[in-house]
Amino acid sequence: MTFSSLNLSIHGSRLLRHIQQLGKIGRDPGGQLTRLAASDNDKCGRDALIAWIKEAGLEAAVDRIGNIFGIWRAPSQEHQAPVLIGSHIDTVINAGVYDGCYGVLAGLEVIRTLREAGFTPSRPIAVAAFTNEEGVRYAPDMMGSLVYAGGLQATEALASVGTDGSVLGEELARIGYAGTEEPGFMKPHAYVELHIEQGPVLESMDIPIGAVENLQGISWQRVTIEGVANHAGTTPMPMRKDAGHAAARVITFLRDRAIHSQTPAVATVGCIRFEPDAINVIPSRATFTVDLRNPDEQSLQAEEAALDEYLTELANAEGVTITTERMARFEPVIFDAAIVGLVEAAARQRGLTSKRMTSGAGHDAQMMARICPAAIIFVPSIDGISHNPNEHTPEPDLVAGANVLLDVIADLAR
Amino acid sequence: MTFSSLNLSIHGSRLLRHIQQLGKIGRDPGGQLTRLAASDNDKCGRDALIAWIKEAGLEAAVDRIGNIFGIWRAPSQEHQAPVLIGSHIDTVINAGVYDGCYGVLAGLEVIRTLREAGFTPSRPIAVAAFTNEEGVRYAPDMMGSLVYAGGLQATEALASVGTDGSVLGEELARIGYAGTEEPGFMKPHAYVELHIEQGPVLESMDIPIGAVENLQGISWQRVTIEGVANHAGTTPMPMRKDAGHAAARVITFLRDRAIHSQTPAVATVGCIRFEPDAINVIPSRATFTVDLRNPDEQSLQAEEAALDEYLTELANAEGVTITTERMARFEPVIFDAAIVGLVEAAARQRGLTSKRMTSGAGHDAQMMARICPAAIIFVPSIDGISHNPNEHTPEPDLVAGANVLLDVIADLAR
Repeated sequence: MTFSSLNLSIHGSRLLRHIQQLGKIGRDPGGQLTRLAASDNDKCGRDALIAWIKEAGLEAAVDRIGNIFGIWRAPSQEHQAPVLIGSHIDTVINAGVYDGCYGVLAGLEVIRTLREAGFTPSRPIAVAAFTNEEGVRYAPDMMGSLVYAGGLQATEALASVGTDGSVLGEELARIGYAGTEEPGFMKPHAYVELHIEQGPVLESMDIPIGAVENLQGISWQRVTIEGVANHAGTTPMPMRKDAGHAAARVITFLRDRAIHSQTPAVATVGCIRFEPDAINVIPSRATFTVDLRNPDEQSLQAEEAALDEYLTELANAEGVTITTERMARFEPVIFDAAIVGLVEAAARQRGLTSKRMTSGAGHDAQMMARICPAAIIFVPSIDGISHNPNEHTPEPDLVAGANVLLDVIADLAR
Repeated sequence: MTFSSLNLSIHGSRLLRHIQQLGKIGRDPGGQLTRLAASDNDKCGRDALIAWIKEAGLEAAVDRIGNIFGIWRAPSQEHQAPVLIGSHIDTVINAGVYDGCYGVLAGLEVIRTLREAGFTPSRPIAVAAFTNEEGVRYAPDMMGSLVYAGGLQATEALASVGTDGSVLGEELARIGYAGTEEPGFMKPHAYVELHIEQGPVLESMDIPIGAVENLQGISWQRVTIEGVANHAGTTPMPMRKDAGHAAARVITFLRDRAIHSQTPAVATVGCIRFEPDAINVIPSRATFTVDLRNPDEQSLQAEEAALDEYLTELANAEGVTITTERMARFEPVIFDAAIVGLVEAAARQRGLTSKRMTSGAGHDAQMMARICPAAIIFVPSIDGISHNPNEHTPEPDLVAGANVLLDVIADLAR
């Protein structure tokens, strides 16, 4: 580790002002913030970002999938791989102001600070805002970075039909963000993303900086249990084949197993349905989702296998039929150890405590990790709240995170 | 017990034909049977019943709540309390042909058989079809018998607004069944109801006759658990307040307790909802119904108290808030021991095995038990299936049940 500090800091009030300004764009008359990908509101947010990129003296570029770039490079560096800072500015419905936006605007602020301080980077430094990270309007989520990293053809992504029946490519053209650059046109030297944690760990431990070393693998399944509907009053307990009760057993099994796991496994059942859904009828069918996550692929496979085994035992014991359907499966992502080390060193140099941690949520960084060394820096989220207007990170933490990003980027571009 | 057989039997094929004929009335083009109370389809079923009552030479009467009576009495018996046989001919949506209809048509067949055989009853014998037993269109269920027994004012019942916005009184007038008799106009000497079990007990034990000595008390509650919605990936297991998991604990608690109970307790969770109902969000709220039943009031109270205590413990252990709302509560009904004994004796005399049992479902007999000695006779339901087109009772069992009813009625009216 060769990290050394610049004795330079970002312009905190300017960053906070930009976050608040972007957070005012795309609110409905009731005050709710919603900038779905390629919508009119997204256009307004993008226009503000482009204006700030130009105001910072950077070169603006847009690729075919609508990813926006602000590039700082000398004419001699045109073919050099840039250090890329990125995240997204699209939002969920009724969003907070930090998710994604903080990372993009802090990236812009870092480049501006370095430029204003007369720093001479050895390679280009750029900031990216990737299209449709949230995946609310078009599937899949993290689409812009996935296409940029070559994991999905731009043509296929542009043909995506939204929840409102719109076609992404047409919507990007309509709002003026169907760019001409080919996705992947700048292969990064390294990628760093600064993001709110969206979880409670840093706040609860009173640690301002998370050095994100990996990102959980995700296993999503839909489980369907078929029992027999019968009268709730006339069917003795031993004669029941109660699909709802069997579903409850699975939920408690998953909880007990995850809470006693030696790995940082998490398990969640977020959706459930009983049929026929009548107070006095034993459920004939229960359908529910299982979300398993683990930063280690072998451990995740072990959790999946344990669930399978339990379902087989349960089906025999309860006389029900159980089927599972795979909804999504992503392997864990391991971030670049050198960049993670730089994050820790930068925090230490600034007198900030840090913690190596796992990202429980998906981020553009996981796509970029396919094509270059990448890592994420986390700052605390109060109460872990996210995707919600109450999403909040204290201002000192926002500034501290951006300063750590500054140091890491300066080191990567030295 | 002074029971002695008449050496008389009902006309089996006539009863079966009437059941099949009534079961053809009120089917939609797809073949589904639905005769909701006071609907056009109900009118067609009622018209057929009235025609059969008259064909049998009985006096037809209709009271203000639309209950239909077929009365056999000598002029000298006009002011005597009748032996009443009853049930209902309204159905659930997509019903089978036996529930309710079997009891009414068997009652009619019993009276017809006694009359044709020259039997001379010491008091009137009547058959009743009570309005809106199923309670699908208008609440509460068992309405006609409840009003007849004085548990609900006719005026109030007639003002009931249906699920389709209709008013019961207006609908009864429209279909021509707003009668003139005051509900309760004939106070019965005794009431007997013949019904399919709607449960699996008799079939599984290969016993043709159930002598129903009591009817379970019912406790219906809605339980709401409030936790905290958080990201399924970023929230470590020990930091969760998962309302869905807490709900699953309650379901397994109820099942384990009921299955190990020394009383014939049953417990069912038939409806459940999670909020926000997203695969990757820990449920902030779980709402579910609890249906507890027990033939003994003190035992039912003990089950309710055990649930309350468990909910208090769970709320503390899981950091969630739990509230309960009473939806319905009925105390158990004890039927008349003498009539139950008559049922057993009649079965024995016919060489049929019988079993004293508890009714898990509600029946008009529970209302009539408020005003006269009452009991129910059960016949087997194949697989316990009911409220379903697959509802089935073998023909020999239907005939055997009606013959037991015949003997019991003859004894009560001797």
